[in-house]
Amino acid sequence: MVKAMTFDVFGTVVDWRSSIIREGEALEARTGLEADWPAFADAWRGGYGPAMRRVTSGELGWTKIDVLHRMILDDIIPDFGLTSLDEEARAHLNLAWHRLTPWPDSVSGLTRLKTRYTLATLSNGNVALLVNMAKNAGLPWDAVLSAELAESYKPQPEVYLKAADLLGLEPGEVMMVAAHKGDLRAAAAVGLRTGYVPRPMEYGPDRDIDTTPDPEFDVVATDFNDFADKLGID
Amino acid sequence: MVKAMTFDVFGTVVDWRSSIIREGEALEARTGLEADWPAFADAWRGGYGPAMRRVTSGELGWTKIDVLHRMILDDIIPDFGLTSLDEEARAHLNLAWHRLTPWPDSVSGLTRLKTRYTLATLSNGNVALLVNMAKNAGLPWDAVLSAELAESYKPQPEVYLKAADLLGLEPGEVMMVAAHKGDLRAAAAVGLRTGYVPRPMEYGPDRDIDTTPDPEFDVVATDFNDFADKLGID
Repeated sequence: MVKAMTFDVFGTVVDWRSSIIREGEALEARTGLEADWPAFADAWRGGYGPAMRRVTSGELGWTKIDVLHRMILDDIIPDFGLTSLDEEARAHLNLAWHRLTPWPDSVSGLTRLKTRYTLATLSNGNVALLVNMAKNAGLPWDAVLSAELAESYKPQPEVYLKAADLLGLEPGEVMMVAAHKGDLRAAAAVGLRTGYVPRPMEYGPDRDIDTTPDPEFDVVATDFNDFADKLGID
Repeated sequence: MVKAMTFDVFGTVVDWRSSIIREGEALEARTGLEADWPAFADAWRGGYGPAMRRVTSGELGWTKIDVLHRMILDDIIPDFGLTSLDEEARAHLNLAWHRLTPWPDSVSGLTRLKTRYTLATLSNGNVALLVNMAKNAGLPWDAVLSAELAESYKPQPEVYLKAADLLGLEPGEVMMVAAHKGDLRAAAAVGLRTGYVPRPMEYGPDRDIDTTPDPEFDVVATDFNDFADKLGID
């Protein structure tokens, strides 16, 4: 019945936190600017939900994640002693989100799932970010879909429905796969199937997050290879 | 300077005419219904431009190619003695456009071009059609873009500009590649670069079409491998 799978990306497919820390450390090596990079990564990501809610509430007109990431970055730069970064350095750092690295199982697990299903992203990241990330990391998507194509953000229902419509499928023929229960519950509310792949290390080793399996989800797996195993895919 | 290439698909990447003839012959083998399949392919394709112009003129609201293809099919079915086809058979036949086969050089040439550029479709075909075609034929796109994402049809300027915007690029960083001069001229008019790859057999061996090279295009090549050669890609 399921013909396509749509994947959340930040946290589910790629390890944004380690990647941003690594980018910060590389910046420090190049410039000598020292900062608490784990706290920097968490602060940058922490601005993400509130920024998207400014868009979905209507306070801000349609604005891509690349632009929201830059607004948040400019906001937190003084808190981390990075005000000496010039425009070029800020623009380069902002594109760190285009260079995020996958979890170790992502490419191999997706490659297996792709043999049976159409695989698409369904991220709040904009299309350019997702295309550059996939090319950089070798993620084998059949299609790069994004909340940008609905000019809204998950968990707004139109984002999931737009993805199903673009794939030419009924919502029940699409499975949303994510590490985040809220994303899956919003997808299920408009008829999509759900696959839960918790990523307990998404926020680092010191943060306790809810990763308990939940019978409300159609498939629960520990990673994408386990996901393929559970679906009987070689 | 060019970072991404966007490709016309019908005629440029895939041989729609031979594919539709083959689908007709397979239908005949299954059902015994005889028809002039080359004429059928030409008639079906012949309705395509006028149908899209009904949308871009505003006579018809936004309508995907899958729906336009079905409207044209239902129109021509009586002319080819196919009125006995039931709903299921018509729906299956309509999806022939999702199963078109590439020109012999398409997969190998695109695979070479992909090593240097981001490759995306930019077709009037809808996203689902292009995703299914790519999965079926092994076309190595980095992104599946479509006129559907602008809810308009080429050669309307917003289609080209929407693609550049989604790729996060300036129009001049994108090269439109097509077998059709009108498509390229419309892309160039809004700032895209152009690659002309004429496909003299697109309309079959008996139809004379203009495939003369033209100095107005940035690159002219005889097929996608010649295109990669001309760009110095191994």
